[in-house]
Amino acid sequence: MDGSCREIHEECGVFGVYSSENRDVAGTVYYGLYALQHRGQESCGIAVAFADRITYHKGMGLVPEVFTPENLAKLPEGDIAIGHVRYSTTGSSQLLNAQPVVFTGKCGKMALAHNGNLTNTARLRERLVSENAVFQTAIDSEVMAVLINRLSDGDILNGVRRACPHFAGAYALVLMTADKLIAVRDPYGIRPLCIGIRDDDVMIASESCALDAVGAKFLRDVEPGEIVVVDSGGISSHMMDDIPEGGRMCIFEYVYFARSDSVIDGCSVYRARQEAGRLLAECCGADADIVSGVPDSANVAARAYSAASGIPFAEALAKNRYVGRTFIQPEQSLRENGIGVKLNAIRANIEGKRIVLVDDSIVRGTTMRKIVKMLREAGAREVHVRVCSPAVVHPCHLGIDIRSRSQLIGAGRSEEQIAELIGADSVRYLPAEQLVRACGDCRLGFCLGCFNGEYPYPEDGGDTDKYKFE
Amino acid sequence: MDGSCREIHEECGVFGVYSSENRDVAGTVYYGLYALQHRGQESCGIAVAFADRITYHKGMGLVPEVFTPENLAKLPEGDIAIGHVRYSTTGSSQLLNAQPVVFTGKCGKMALAHNGNLTNTARLRERLVSENAVFQTAIDSEVMAVLINRLSDGDILNGVRRACPHFAGAYALVLMTADKLIAVRDPYGIRPLCIGIRDDDVMIASESCALDAVGAKFLRDVEPGEIVVVDSGGISSHMMDDIPEGGRMCIFEYVYFARSDSVIDGCSVYRARQEAGRLLAECCGADADIVSGVPDSANVAARAYSAASGIPFAEALAKNRYVGRTFIQPEQSLRENGIGVKLNAIRANIEGKRIVLVDDSIVRGTTMRKIVKMLREAGAREVHVRVCSPAVVHPCHLGIDIRSRSQLIGAGRSEEQIAELIGADSVRYLPAEQLVRACGDCRLGFCLGCFNGEYPYPEDGGDTDKYKFE
Amino acid sequence: MDGSCREIHEECGVFGVYSSENRDVAGTVYYGLYALQHRGQESCGIAVAFADRITYHKGMGLVPEVFTPENLAKLPEGDIAIGHVRYSTTGSSQLLNAQPVVFTGKCGKMALAHNGNLTNTARLRERLVSENAVFQTAIDSEVMAVLINRLSDGDILNGVRRACPHFAGAYALVLMTADKLIAVRDPYGIRPLCIGIRDDDVMIASESCALDAVGAKFLRDVEPGEIVVVDSGGISSHMMDDIPEGGRMCIFEYVYFARSDSVIDGCSVYRARQEAGRLLAECCGADADIVSGVPDSANVAARAYSAASGIPFAEALAKNRYVGRTFIQPEQSLRENGIGVKLNAIRANIEGKRIVLVDDSIVRGTTMRKIVKMLREAGAREVHVRVCSPAVVHPCHLGIDIRSRSQLIGAGRSEEQIAELIGADSVRYLPAEQLVRACGDCRLGFCLGCFNGEYPYPEDGGDTDKYKFE
Amino acid sequence: MDGSCREIHEECGVFGVYSSENRDVAGTVYYGLYALQHRGQESCGIAVAFADRITYHKGMGLVPEVFTPENLAKLPEGDIAIGHVRYSTTGSSQLLNAQPVVFTGKCGKMALAHNGNLTNTARLRERLVSENAVFQTAIDSEVMAVLINRLSDGDILNGVRRACPHFAGAYALVLMTADKLIAVRDPYGIRPLCIGIRDDDVMIASESCALDAVGAKFLRDVEPGEIVVVDSGGISSHMMDDIPEGGRMCIFEYVYFARSDSVIDGCSVYRARQEAGRLLAECCGADADIVSGVPDSANVAARAYSAASGIPFAEALAKNRYVGRTFIQPEQSLRENGIGVKLNAIRANIEGKRIVLVDDSIVRGTTMRKIVKMLREAGAREVHVRVCSPAVVHPCHLGIDIRSRSQLIGAGRSEEQIAELIGADSVRYLPAEQLVRACGDCRLGFCLGCFNGEYPYPEDGGDTDKYKFE
Repeated sequence: MDGSCREIHEECGVFGVYSSENRDVAGTVYYGLYALQHRGQESCGIAVAFADRITYHKGMGLVPEVFTPENLAKLPEGDIAIGHVRYSTTGSSQLLNAQPVVFTGKCGKMALAHNGNLTNTARLRERLVSENAVFQTAIDSEVMAVLINRLSDGDILNGVRRACPHFAGAYALVLMTADKLIAVRDPYGIRPLCIGIRDDDVMIASESCALDAVGAKFLRDVEPGEIVVVDSGGISSHMMDDIPEGGRMCIFEYVYFARSDSVIDGCSVYRARQEAGRLLAECCGADADIVSGVPDSANVAARAYSAASGIPFAEALAKNRYVGRTFIQPEQSLRENGIGVKLNAIRANIEGKRIVLVDDSIVRGTTMRKIVKMLREAGAREVHVRVCSPAVVHPCHLGIDIRSRSQLIGAGRSEEQIAELIGADSVRYLPAEQLVRACGDCRLGFCLGCFNGEYPYPEDGGDTDKYKFE
Repeated sequence: MDGSCREIHEECGVFGVYSSENRDVAGTVYYGLYALQHRGQESCGIAVAFADRITYHKGMGLVPEVFTPENLAKLPEGDIAIGHVRYSTTGSSQLLNAQPVVFTGKCGKMALAHNGNLTNTARLRERLVSENAVFQTAIDSEVMAVLINRLSDGDILNGVRRACPHFAGAYALVLMTADKLIAVRDPYGIRPLCIGIRDDDVMIASESCALDAVGAKFLRDVEPGEIVVVDSGGISSHMMDDIPEGGRMCIFEYVYFARSDSVIDGCSVYRARQEAGRLLAECCGADADIVSGVPDSANVAARAYSAASGIPFAEALAKNRYVGRTFIQPEQSLRENGIGVKLNAIRANIEGKRIVLVDDSIVRGTTMRKIVKMLREAGAREVHVRVCSPAVVHPCHLGIDIRSRSQLIGAGRSEEQIAELIGADSVRYLPAEQLVRACGDCRLGFCLGCFNGEYPYPEDGGDTDKYKFE
Repeated sequence: MDGSCREIHEECGVFGVYSSENRDVAGTVYYGLYALQHRGQESCGIAVAFADRITYHKGMGLVPEVFTPENLAKLPEGDIAIGHVRYSTTGSSQLLNAQPVVFTGKCGKMALAHNGNLTNTARLRERLVSENAVFQTAIDSEVMAVLINRLSDGDILNGVRRACPHFAGAYALVLMTADKLIAVRDPYGIRPLCIGIRDDDVMIASESCALDAVGAKFLRDVEPGEIVVVDSGGISSHMMDDIPEGGRMCIFEYVYFARSDSVIDGCSVYRARQEAGRLLAECCGADADIVSGVPDSANVAARAYSAASGIPFAEALAKNRYVGRTFIQPEQSLRENGIGVKLNAIRANIEGKRIVLVDDSIVRGTTMRKIVKMLREAGAREVHVRVCSPAVVHPCHLGIDIRSRSQLIGAGRSEEQIAELIGADSVRYLPAEQLVRACGDCRLGFCLGCFNGEYPYPEDGGDTDKYKFE
Repeated sequence: MDGSCREIHEECGVFGVYSSENRDVAGTVYYGLYALQHRGQESCGIAVAFADRITYHKGMGLVPEVFTPENLAKLPEGDIAIGHVRYSTTGSSQLLNAQPVVFTGKCGKMALAHNGNLTNTARLRERLVSENAVFQTAIDSEVMAVLINRLSDGDILNGVRRACPHFAGAYALVLMTADKLIAVRDPYGIRPLCIGIRDDDVMIASESCALDAVGAKFLRDVEPGEIVVVDSGGISSHMMDDIPEGGRMCIFEYVYFARSDSVIDGCSVYRARQEAGRLLAECCGADADIVSGVPDSANVAARAYSAASGIPFAEALAKNRYVGRTFIQPEQSLRENGIGVKLNAIRANIEGKRIVLVDDSIVRGTTMRKIVKMLREAGAREVHVRVCSPAVVHPCHLGIDIRSRSQLIGAGRSEEQIAELIGADSVRYLPAEQLVRACGDCRLGFCLGCFNGEYPYPEDGGDTDKYKFE
């Protein structure tokens, strides 16, 4: 599923451009963010550096809502620009917390945008407060920016190099000063980040689909633990010390977050999903008349399942393309009447059929329960749910909005129990080793924390001895 | 293709409800219109009848934009409500022209919403002006409403029966007075209209998907030339005189406009598209490595083509789900760099491949030219375009936004010439008789005017002797 | 008092321009309406005629709110334009009812804006409905426009001449077609209307202050019963038949509605108010230490009272210049604490003083009661209220928002009873004959209906035999 | 003059409340800010402390625009709240720079609002940046807040006491933490600040008129150099060290900024203006027929001039009460025609007259030139301008928007030269010693810097040795 139907959410996407020719850097970031909109629909922002000033605009809403032609036109021409799209939970759904963070400090003007989540923010913040810092927002990014500034001695690269060892968690950053664009990826490479080239311009993006959208050629991924600096001298690369071997890329990016036309760390998202569908058919077969996917993101896997199993593919569900963020929840009376504004069963395809319904993942299970009910009411004889990833049983503290274990339908339940809860005839999950196999083209290892509880960083932020800033 | 990528546009969708129990008739229409949003994204409106008053709200924009929770809450409870979604060309993109049309006249308060297009509006208008009428908008619907009122003698059913013979063109109407909901379909049944039941409530909708959305059961289609009256006495049916045999339903509804989960006049839209894809494979084969569809609407046909031809299906294009009406056109410099904000090629699937690209129709051809270019740049070796309908060679004057023959790439050109224009290796169209076969479940005959120029009504509105109002 | 403190409201102001040189007719109307804003703050609109089209924009709110630079710029250049500002009671506070009314009929495109109130609207409307007319709004203006069109035979002047005898009530109209600007004043001249000249341009305005605002020279008032036509042939004048002698101009225009810098029918509003204050001192003296006026409109009279009585003038009340329409009413707790956001007593001027407080009129008395209380709390020893007009004892049905007799504090009460109700030591009203004397420069007679119940038209619209349209 | 006609601008107003009973502290601040709206119309904000959180809303626009009922309702109940209204020059007209400044630091949550201007901000900022601070805005208030936090050792009163000696300039502050409301006035008392009591609630306001507006009783002014702390223990007072004798209150507050119903440091603003008018008549007489004031603020003085000189008072100018911030400047063609949308001459009062026109001050002189022209066009025979304050000849760096000496019409010109420039028959200014005499009730001495160049703080911020933070 995707869009407004999503049960879990990525928290951000970032984009940056350093241009020597095209002065419309804000426009470039605008189209880059548009292509990354699936990574965050709550707020967005663009900051532009020109001369010694940084001008920015941030707002609540989708990219085209915040950046109307009027607002976009107010941003000046410049050499460098960065942008950000954000999703967050309601508690902090405020303009105040939108990014990029922009301020003046030892390195002059500076702006920073962040995708990921630190586990030791509270402790860093407390420490910085005790050393006279003040904070105007509730977000990681401000803490990161303040610490980078504090350790910079006026040299931004210095600041980044010294600050990164203090950050425990997932981060893919773009930051800029008046004359430099910098990209940083955490030592495990948990969140994706890549580099593109268009003529003499350099782009940084969370996903390669954003490079395609602005006509840039994919150059390479930013490596785990790498700091990439783009300035008038070109692109230079700096590695952090003590980078762990192999990386631990978040496998959920392939399962669900990333756009299918992106290629991340050498692995096509489309191919990974296709392969997951194929392996799912091998290991979790079902006796059925048709195979169908929950639109849109599970369709690739469903078709691969169909091809591998020989069961014909047919769409069981139509999706209303116009349901967006502002959807008003129907009141009880309508809901009981079986309302399906977002999804609708295609009766012609399912009446009297036994259906294999493929989805990419199941988190809380509430949407899946409604879908199964809808299929049965439209005449499905059997519904067998097949999931392209293992059961989600652990909350994530590295940037995915999976909050509490108690909400996870997969936690502490057998497949039979889950099937009963969602009203399906059977439920089967793709085992973790098969999912890893499906993403076999990826050059990095994986974080499978939400499936097996093993995270590269502990939830409480880990060893505190680390945090001595000087 | 669909959404903002569409090259042609339906002009309207209508929805009505008569309720004896549930007082939230505005809420019901809201969800009904949401499900019909694909039929019109420019403006929308809802009118509610309670006691002797009709209250309404209309606005420019999508249903959830116009009907924010605050605006929806301002509409009162009531017994009857009708609603409308509208697309129009720029000239008349004004709030003023939004529907429903609401006024006071001989039958008291009355509201009317219209899907379709009359060919003799100008003449009717002129005639009515000469008899002292004034018009505050530029739309057909006001002319229809004024004539119905004029001929009603205070009895709305009378007015509708006497007025309909004067309407030359396509119309699917919902109208209401303080105590009646009326649905009307033109004598040829050119635009779809159907009836649903939910408990004791009666619904009228342009497509059955809207009935599903509000939890209503499909009862039946409104027949060509039928006037359905819903009031405290239940549902009654009245047929116009001299109804032509067989009907001439617009076949483009199946090809492109209607939602795939709708069933119109007995024929599933999904099935019709699937069958068109199958027949296309039979008659217009190609030597290729993969079959792909232009997302989203052509995917059904593309998969059927794949199944019939044995050539594997693979997605060649990813669609940005967030590109909406407010998209800012990139300036030239970005566009030349190959920008693809709306669609992006999935290189992993197409590099080095010979592709059959299925689309539902081609009108002006400009989008298809860009897509073919994008595929080639992503490494496609050959691109064979296959279209699920005949070449569009005639403008439509019955409610589809196909304006001028000179813009139609198919007009006066051979398939070879078209292929050259759009840069494809070959282009083949499904012949009209095959398309008709694909829609064989439909109980009505078809209007194929845009393919063969034979329309049920002439463009100039036809015989004028008809227009004597008394 | 004025602005948001006003207890009663005028219902409209109108402005029109016919230009042979300056194409920015919309801009001229904009500034004209700005100067007439005191006559209506609820909605406003401007319509522009160019070639055969009439383009308009209307909205809820003040002139600068509705006509932002963007909205104003959207109106085209043209030859003729008319505009309207409107106040109305809540029931019909809808954009729908904003003016000008614009439509197409026998005279082609036509727009009309109306200041005043008819007493026989319902009957005209009913009659027109029975002859097939439909109405989309609830306002007089639409009825007037439809009847004018109906009787015009395609000649607008014809229509106006034939329709006016059917209008029973107050009206000052501006209307336009593609090539004519027309101004009409009812046979009694109840509402003001005047003509100005700027170079070769002709202006029509409710008050002369609007002519000053656009740099036009006052030419003359439109006469009671006069129809002024402005077109390429210049200005021509047409008188209705059977015009009553002398006119009956609404005297409340001088008392309260009009701006003090306007001159109406030969009489300066400022001078009339000054003279009323002087006569008030003569007939309604008081033993006091200072004279003060309720700001702002009563200050002129208060100073004249001071000069005539020899009691020094001092401001007792300061007014918050920023309190506007969107003021949030304080909740009870704050109100009980004596909140005075709109007005504040100037303690330095009133402590220990006996005060004569002059106001222009008292309608419901609720505001005056609060003011007296505020003055006493600030230390006033005595408060003697003196009013520049007689007690309002009759509702008005000719365009002033004085609705129900039961709300009128002056109805059926002696001055002593009123004083007790509002907490004043004494209350005295200027007798009607003195008020008429104060407005002695006016060339017309007066309607004193709200003081003596004698209106030129009965409330129920009068003799119905009149209404035969042919 | 006032409102949108003002040539110079105060930069801020502040309001704070500590409540033990009434939980609607945001509502109280709302009405307080409403009464201070004349001190700043560009942006405003309210922050509320409840439990350990501070919630705020800020926006561009007037108080009722920013705090719609919806927005006001979103602010929680609480114990303490502060608010701010702001004017600024265009360069920094951004939401970003709106106040209060809110952040988390050593003292927990903290909010600060500031009226005034520091002269050494740049140096303080530079120094703080060198000690690792970052700044997200361009305003003084952030610098003050950061320094207070830095020097606080976690005790807010500590921070204020240690930081104030570093602030060179004018400041009247309200700040709050989770449990304290603090008011601070600079050692010279340049900007006003006073304390009020309502039941058990304590209020702090820039002017006493805001205390009246919320029903609070004036307790006393905050003394120059005083720090007032309000918490659960009641009100306590702390004096800064080395406070200069006598104070130097900005005399322009009496001349022009403050509302006439305020009493500042023992002197009624109304009385001071009245007395200035009287003294002006004594020292700057003129042979004339009428005395008139530029509305609204100069009317008090004009009437006093009239009383003292025996020349009758009459209004020469009417003001459009509806001209606000969003006024669209008329284009040249209209302007040349003598447009007077904001002010209009009352011809009846001035034709053939010799006029004394009183204004409170003249800064650039451009508006006065237009007014004199308007009066002459309306028939004035002579225009003698009399000003209630000396010629403004020095820019102010303490919070008044008088920027550059070159714009000051009074700088380097004789009264005769100025009269010629503005087209008047004569111009006379009230000498400084007479103005001081008029404000004789004020317990403090005065800053007369804009008249005589003697400011309590040098423009460049003064002695830098002072700035050692430890």
